[in-house]
Parts: sequence; C-alpha cells; structure tokens
Amino acid sequence: MDLLHDGERLDDLERNGLKLIQNPSLFCFGMDAVLLSGFATVKEGENAIDLGCGNGIIPVLLSAKNPGRHFTGLEIQHEVADMARRSVEYNRIGKRVEIVEGDIREASVLFGKSAFDVVTSNPPYMLGGHGLKNPDSAKAVARHEILCTLEDLVRETSLILKPQGRFYMVHRPFRLAEIITVLKKYHLEPKRMRLVYPFIDKEPNMVLIEAVRGGKPRMQVEPPLIVYRDVGVYTDEIINIYSF
Amino acid sequence: MDLLHDGERLDDLERNGLKLIQNPSLFCFGMDAVLLSGFATVKEGENAIDLGCGNGIIPVLLSAKNPGRHFTGLEIQHEVADMARRSVEYNRIGKRVEIVEGDIREASVLFGKSAFDVVTSNPPYMLGGHGLKNPDSAKAVARHEILCTLEDLVRETSLILKPQGRFYMVHRPFRLAEIITVLKKYHLEPKRMRLVYPFIDKEPNMVLIEAVRGGKPRMQVEPPLIVYRDVGVYTDEIINIYSF
Repeated sequence: MDLLHDGERLDDLERNGLKLIQNPSLFCFGMDAVLLSGFATVKEGENAIDLGCGNGIIPVLLSAKNPGRHFTGLEIQHEVADMARRSVEYNRIGKRVEIVEGDIREASVLFGKSAFDVVTSNPPYMLGGHGLKNPDSAKAVARHEILCTLEDLVRETSLILKPQGRFYMVHRPFRLAEIITVLKKYHLEPKRMRLVYPFIDKEPNMVLIEAVRGGKPRMQVEPPLIVYRDVGVYTDEIINIYSF
Repeated sequence: MDLLHDGERLDDLERNGLKLIQNPSLFCFGMDAVLLSGFATVKEGENAIDLGCGNGIIPVLLSAKNPGRHFTGLEIQHEVADMARRSVEYNRIGKRVEIVEGDIREASVLFGKSAFDVVTSNPPYMLGGHGLKNPDSAKAVARHEILCTLEDLVRETSLILKPQGRFYMVHRPFRLAEIITVLKKYHLEPKRMRLVYPFIDKEPNMVLIEAVRGGKPRMQVEPPLIVYRDVGVYTDEIINIYSF
C-alpha cells in the first residue's frame, strides 16, 4: 500500500512521534479539533467514537492522550476515510484505533444502542448547503450540514451512548441556543461549557460543550479560553494544549 | 411622608444626582443590577417593565440612561415596593417611573398582553426554598425561587411583550441550559449573551442574556466581561458601566 496518494502530505503532530496524512484540497484539521481533544477525556476501559472523523485527527490525538480502551472514527467520505486508515496504520495504533466508513445518520444501526462511553464530534458548523458551488466537495461536506444536521448528530449520539455516557462537541457560538435545545430534547444534559475567545476583547469563535446522557441539570461554565495574548503569540494555555 | 423608615439609608448612585433608599436588612442591589442596566436598552417611545424590581434600582438606572418613554417596576413585597416608591418620589422621576405592587405570576393579568416593548429582570437565582430558615424573609424571596420560578417569569414575560419585544435578564451560568430551553419554549429567542468573569482566569458568575419574542435563531455571544484586572481593581469597562 502506498503511504501517500497524489496531493497528500504527512504532517508531524509533534507529540508521541505521531504523524497524520492530510490533503489540503480536501480538508485539513484546525484548532477546533485540537481543542476538542484537549477538552474531552476517555477513561481507562472506556470506548469512544468520533462522529465525522475526517482525516482521523481526533481519534489519533485522543488515543495518545487518554488511557481509554478503544477509539473508533466514523467517516462517510471514502477518500477521506481511506486517508485516515492509512494514518492509523502508519502510526501502528490499529489495536486501539479503528476507522469505519459510514453515515452518522445510521450510527445506531451500525454500532447498536448504548455502545459507547464517549462520543466526540467536530461537526459541520454552517446550516444547509444552499447556493454552494460544489455541495459535493469534501470541504463543503465538512463545513456545511449537507449530509448530516445537528439534530441527526445529537439523535444518533444519544442512541449510541450508554446511560451517563459523555458527549463532547466543538461548535460555533452563534448556534448555542439551538445546540442546548437539541441536546436537552435528546436527554443529553449540558454539564460543562467553555467559550474560546481569539483575543480577550473579542467575541468567542468556538464553544466546547460536554453533555451527559440522562445527567441532572446543572452546568459548569469554565474560565474563558483565550487563544492569543498578542497578535501571533499564543497564550500559555494554548501552548500547553498543543504540546500536552 | 417620612423619607426614610427605620433601618433605611439613602445611597448616592453617583449619576445624574440620583439617590436610592436601601435597607440592608432586606436586600441591597448588587453588581448584577448595574450590569443588567448597562446591557439593556430602551429606545425612544418604548415602554419597559422590570419584573421583581426590589428597591427599584433597575427602573431608576434605566430611566436615567435611556430615552425610553416609561419605566414600570413590579414588586410583590409591600415594604420593598413602598421603599422603591419613595425613591422615585425623592428623585422626582415619577412622570417616567412607576412602581406597582403585585405578583410576577399575574403580570399578564395586571398589564394585559403585548403591553411592553422591553422587559428586564434580575430574578432569584437559587432553586426552591427548601431548608431555608426564613423562607418568608425579603432576602430569601429575592434570592430563591419561593414566590416565582424561572418558568413563571419567562411565561409572563412572553405574554406581556409585544412581538419582537426584547427581554433582558441577568442570571447564574449554572442554569444556562435551563434558561435557554425555557426561553425557547416560550418563543423568546436568545439573541445576545455575555458572560461576566470576575477575573480572566476564573469561571463566570453571571450571564447577561437578551431574547427577542419571535426572533429568528442566531445568537451573538459577546466578548468576555471581566470585572477585576487585579484584586480590588476594576477593569476600565466596569468603571465605564458604573459611571456611564
């Protein structure tokens, strides 16, 4: 098997010697995925799944940072899932990490109910795909709710999570009211939230949220996560998350 | 009429020459009320009501800071409403500010439907009053949901607001998921939110939220409002809000 296909590159994740295959013409992971991996925890013996795993960045990082037993990544796009699988093989972490090709909307059929302790997701942020030039492109599918809406994701998450299982998601703050309403609708109680502000005096551009299936109402909002302390200079906390 | 009753004092609000009667054995206003008054706007010609106005701090501040036509304060506790009324008279602002004694749970009966452009509230933060030593005390009623729950407040707000009318509330972040769910249930769409962090590296202890009756889903989360830049030293923004 060839390691790299046309247009692909091998990026050094600069931790545990891990590398990840990426194709800039498809979709490269962003800070969102890294922050979500730092926000989520997968305890010893637990099984986790990342819904819409793209090139596999979240399962790969989570498996390196957490003692959890097994990490699945579900990805619908064949070319992208294949790339993620080659990264898993290259890193020789196939015993703990598996990439499955399939549709988030059928996750509960594919894996069965109450199958996981932890679900993570960095889903498409934008509503619909109307007016897009290339709605079938990998980038469009990753950014827009073309193949899967927030409600699809949350419904399947609630089905495949065990009772008291944990759901970790990164999303955009402008959809926070909808996010919370949909989580509550499917009995995923928001328990922990952190807003990511690019600068201390700017609006947040990401929200990290943890919800517990069947949890009791009471939410912890964490200190602000500030990304830059000066133009081009990360805060210490961001440096820590990146280097863990 | 005596200006001050036993146990009362006259506090200088240090703006527009306004003063407010307070009784420390009942309840004194806090930073919550001041920040809410800075977060809310009442435009020219608009009518506003503060639900559970206590000593009247919010109607008094709002009327000083905004061109709105009229400001009502609704307060259920006779002794407290009487104190607020005397403050209004002392400040000679009775043409624009009126204190009404009554129950939030009956606001839509008292004032009729679609009666206001703006509703504000700094409601009790704590759930229930079980186990309290003095559940009838003015402080307990102000802090705990003894006479009025969040859902009571939101239901009445939705009824007395005009379509596209605005609701401004300050509350505790630990109840954010419930707040958003209840607002949505009564067709008050959360449109704007700001978290108040005492220090840049601490959890927020207040949330300011603006909801619009019948508004479209899309929420703006504002930059963090940081209270102290050092122990005992307010940030410039807090100083600005206090001195407007």
